[in-house]
Amino acid sequence: MREPWDLSLHEAAEAIASRQLSSRDLVRSLLDRIDKLEPQIQAWARLRPEEALAEAEELDRRLARGESLGPLHGVPVGVKDIYYTAGWETSAGSRILAGFLPPFDATVVSRLKAKGAIILGKTVTTEFATFDPGPTRNPWNLDHTPGGSSSGSAAAVAARMCPGAFGTQTAGSILRPAAFCGIVGLKPTYGRISRHGVVPVSWTLDHPGPMARTVRDVAILLEATAGPDGHDTTCLAEPLEGCVAACDQPASGLRVGVPDRFFLDRSSPEMASAYRRALSLLAETGMEVREIRLPPEFDDCPEAHRTIMYAEAAAFHERWFRARAEEYGPKIRAMIEEGLEIPAVSYLRAREIRTACTQAMQGLFGEIDLLATPATPGPAPKGLSSTGDPIFNLPFSFVGFPAITVPAGLSPEGLPLGIQLVARPLDEPTLLRAAAAYERVAPWRDLRPPRRGPEGVKRAREDGF
Amino acid sequence: MREPWDLSLHEAAEAIASRQLSSRDLVRSLLDRIDKLEPQIQAWARLRPEEALAEAEELDRRLARGESLGPLHGVPVGVKDIYYTAGWETSAGSRILAGFLPPFDATVVSRLKAKGAIILGKTVTTEFATFDPGPTRNPWNLDHTPGGSSSGSAAAVAARMCPGAFGTQTAGSILRPAAFCGIVGLKPTYGRISRHGVVPVSWTLDHPGPMARTVRDVAILLEATAGPDGHDTTCLAEPLEGCVAACDQPASGLRVGVPDRFFLDRSSPEMASAYRRALSLLAETGMEVREIRLPPEFDDCPEAHRTIMYAEAAAFHERWFRARAEEYGPKIRAMIEEGLEIPAVSYLRAREIRTACTQAMQGLFGEIDLLATPATPGPAPKGLSSTGDPIFNLPFSFVGFPAITVPAGLSPEGLPLGIQLVARPLDEPTLLRAAAAYERVAPWRDLRPPRRGPEGVKRAREDGF
Repeated sequence: MREPWDLSLHEAAEAIASRQLSSRDLVRSLLDRIDKLEPQIQAWARLRPEEALAEAEELDRRLARGESLGPLHGVPVGVKDIYYTAGWETSAGSRILAGFLPPFDATVVSRLKAKGAIILGKTVTTEFATFDPGPTRNPWNLDHTPGGSSSGSAAAVAARMCPGAFGTQTAGSILRPAAFCGIVGLKPTYGRISRHGVVPVSWTLDHPGPMARTVRDVAILLEATAGPDGHDTTCLAEPLEGCVAACDQPASGLRVGVPDRFFLDRSSPEMASAYRRALSLLAETGMEVREIRLPPEFDDCPEAHRTIMYAEAAAFHERWFRARAEEYGPKIRAMIEEGLEIPAVSYLRAREIRTACTQAMQGLFGEIDLLATPATPGPAPKGLSSTGDPIFNLPFSFVGFPAITVPAGLSPEGLPLGIQLVARPLDEPTLLRAAAAYERVAPWRDLRPPRRGPEGVKRAREDGF
Repeated sequence: MREPWDLSLHEAAEAIASRQLSSRDLVRSLLDRIDKLEPQIQAWARLRPEEALAEAEELDRRLARGESLGPLHGVPVGVKDIYYTAGWETSAGSRILAGFLPPFDATVVSRLKAKGAIILGKTVTTEFATFDPGPTRNPWNLDHTPGGSSSGSAAAVAARMCPGAFGTQTAGSILRPAAFCGIVGLKPTYGRISRHGVVPVSWTLDHPGPMARTVRDVAILLEATAGPDGHDTTCLAEPLEGCVAACDQPASGLRVGVPDRFFLDRSSPEMASAYRRALSLLAETGMEVREIRLPPEFDDCPEAHRTIMYAEAAAFHERWFRARAEEYGPKIRAMIEEGLEIPAVSYLRAREIRTACTQAMQGLFGEIDLLATPATPGPAPKGLSSTGDPIFNLPFSFVGFPAITVPAGLSPEGLPLGIQLVARPLDEPTLLRAAAAYERVAPWRDLRPPRRGPEGVKRAREDGF
C-alpha cells in the first residue's frame, strides 16, 4: 500500500470518497512528511496543522453521514501566500504586508473550501510575486531554484507535501516553477479564475491557476474554482465545463503547431532534445504535429509585456513605495522605480501591441488547435538568487491564451524538463485533452524527486524512465 | 404648408414615407437653405449636393415601387467630419488628415445609409474634435460660439440646414453645442454606438451620438445606428430596443435626482433660473423630483477625465506629432505636449478613480432613475476662440452613463439654454421617455433662431414662449 502522502490529488479524492482513506489520515501523513522535508525545502510560509486536522475530522464525519461537499471532499491543498485567507496572515512574501489579516477569503479559497478542500497552508511566494526569491529550494536538487514566483506551491507539490496547490502567473510564475519541479502547472485563459482577493502584480496580466502532479488533478482544481465572479469585473462570464471529462478523450486528429523560431533558438541542448522527444510522443497519440510560422507580432511580446507589467505594478505599489521604499527587496524596488518612470503613451502603445499580438495569435489558431513549445529554456538554474527566465511563458500570459506544462523527462543532471502546450482562449478542454493524452504515452509517471540533494539523481531516473 | 427644410426629422421621414413629400424636394429645399445661410454659419466642412440629389431621386423611385429602406428612407443628415466616409475626404478639421480618403464608411455612416438616410455633407469639427475651433458660428448670434467639438452638426441642425446630424462626445462635445444652439443632443451609454471608422480622441471616453430638434428624432437616429459591431471590440453586445416607443410613454413616477452641489454653484443666474423652471416642468409631467447628495467621488471626475483624455489623445497622435508638430493648432498642441508627459501610473490611477466613480454613481442610481442638471454653466460664450466649458457633461462621459440635453428656453439676451438628463447605463429608453415627456409640457417648441444676428432675438422669443 502506498503512503497517503504519495497519492495524486485525484487518487486521494477517490480514496476518501470511497472511504478507503480518511481525510484525517491523509492530513496526518502529509503533516508528517512536511515535518521531515520542510527544513530542507522551505515551501511553506505558514501552516495550520491543528485546524486542518480538525477540519479533516469534521469532513470525515460528514462523509460518514453521507454528505459529500464535492470533488475535493477532504483533500488538503496549499495556496500561494498572495491569496487572501480571512483572518489569517497573507503577507505576499513581503515586509509591507507582514501581519496583514485579510477581511475575507479570495474567491479561489472560498470555492476550494465550498467543494470540500482543506487549506493546509500558505506556500512561499517571491516578494509580491515578482523577482526577489523566498527561501524555497528545488526538491530535485537543493542547490537549484524551484522557479518562481509560485515557488512554494511547485516545491510542495513536487516533494509530495500536498497533492495540489494554487499559484499565480503574470509572466511565467506557474508554468516555469512547475516545469522546474517536474509537475503539471496550468495557466487558464485570462479571466477564467477570479482574481478577487489575490494581491495583484499587474491586473491585466495576472492569472490564478492550479499546480498538481497529473493533468487530471489540475483539471479538477480548475473546474472547482473557475467561472464568473461578481467580485471581479475582469472575470469571464462564460461557464467552464468538461475539463475533467476531456482528460479521458482521445486526442487524435488535434493539430499541433511547432513554432519555427523563438523557442528552439533559445533552448539549451538538453531542453531541445527533451522537446523533440516530447513532439514524437504527441505524434504517437495521433495528434498531427506540423511546423508553423509564428506571426512577426510575437517578437514584440517581451518588451510590451514588461512595459505593462512594470507600469501596473508601479501603480499598485506607488503609495506604499513612496513612503516605505526601504522595506522592498532590491529587485522589486528596481522594477517599481522603472515602472514609475514609464510614460502613459508607452503603456498605451504596449496595450495596442497586445491587441495586435492577440489578433495575430488568433489568426494562427485558425490553422492549429494547439501550440507545443519547450516550457523553459532549460532546467532550473543553479543557485537561489534568480528564479529563472519566463521568456517562453510570458507571451501567453501577455495574450491571455491558456497554457499548460507537463513533464518532459529529466536532464542528464537529473533535473526536470517540461513541455508547454497552448490552446485558444476558452479552450481549456482541448488543452487538457491533449495534455492527458501525452501524459498517457509518456514513459515516465508522476516524476519522483530524490530523497535529498543531487546524490539521489540516479535513483530518480531509474524510477522515471 | 411649412417649408420642407423646416420639418423635424420624424416629420420629414413621415412625409416622405406617406409620399406627401419627395426626398428630392426635401434635399433641394435644404440645399437652397444652405446656399443662403452657410456663408454666415459655416457649419459644413464639405457637401455633396449632386450626389445627395441623385440618391434622393433613386430613393424616391424605390419608394414609388413600394420599397422602403426603413425609418430614414430619403432623409438627409450631416455627419461630423471625423466619421469615415469611403473615398470621400475626412479631415477631422486638421491639416494632418487634409485630403485623407477613408477606405471604408464608419459603421454609423453605413448603418444610416442602410436605413435609407442620405449623407448630405460633413459638418465642421474643431481640430481632431478637441479645442481649436473651426469657423462655425452660433445661428442664434453670430458673435457667439456654437460650442464644440461637434460645432457644425449643432449649428446645421439649429439653422435648419439638415433635420439631424451625428456628433461625438469625449467631454461635452455633443451636449454642450446642442444646448448652446437650442437643439436636442444625445450621448448614449459608452459602447452603444460603434466607434469603428471614427477618428479617436480618447478611445475609452469617445461616444458617437445623434443631434436633432426633437427627442423623437434623436431616438430614431439612435435606434438606426446603435447595437453590436464586430469591428469595434468596445461596442456593447446588448441590443437596443424600444427607444422610439419610449417617447410616447408617460413619465409619471420616474424618480429624478437634483444634485445638491457641483452644478448650481457653477451656473450663471440665467442658467440657474432656467434650470429651476425646467425642474418644475419635470414635476408637472408627474416625475418625482427630489434633491440627492452627489457621492464625494464625483468631484474627482474632472481631473481624472483630463488625465485619461490627454494621455490617450497623446498616444494616438504621438507619431504624427513627433514628425509634424507645426501642423497642429495651438490648443491641441499644448494638450498633446501635456499628454506625452503623463506618467503611466497617473493614467492608471485615473482609471482606478473612474472605476470608483462609476461604482459610486451606480450606487446613487439605486435611489433614482434619472439625474437632472443644467446642461452648461450658462449660454454660449461670446467670441469664437473658445467653444465653452464642458464641465457639466464630462462626468457622464467619464463614467459612460447616457445623457441627453433638451432646450430649457432662452436667456434674457436670446441665447438658448438646456437641461441635461442622465440615466443608468443601458437605460436610454427611460432617458428618452423622460425627455419626451418634458418636451411635451415645455412652453416652447422646436426653438427657432432669428433670421440673422442678434437683431432677430425678439422674434425668436415670441416664436418660443
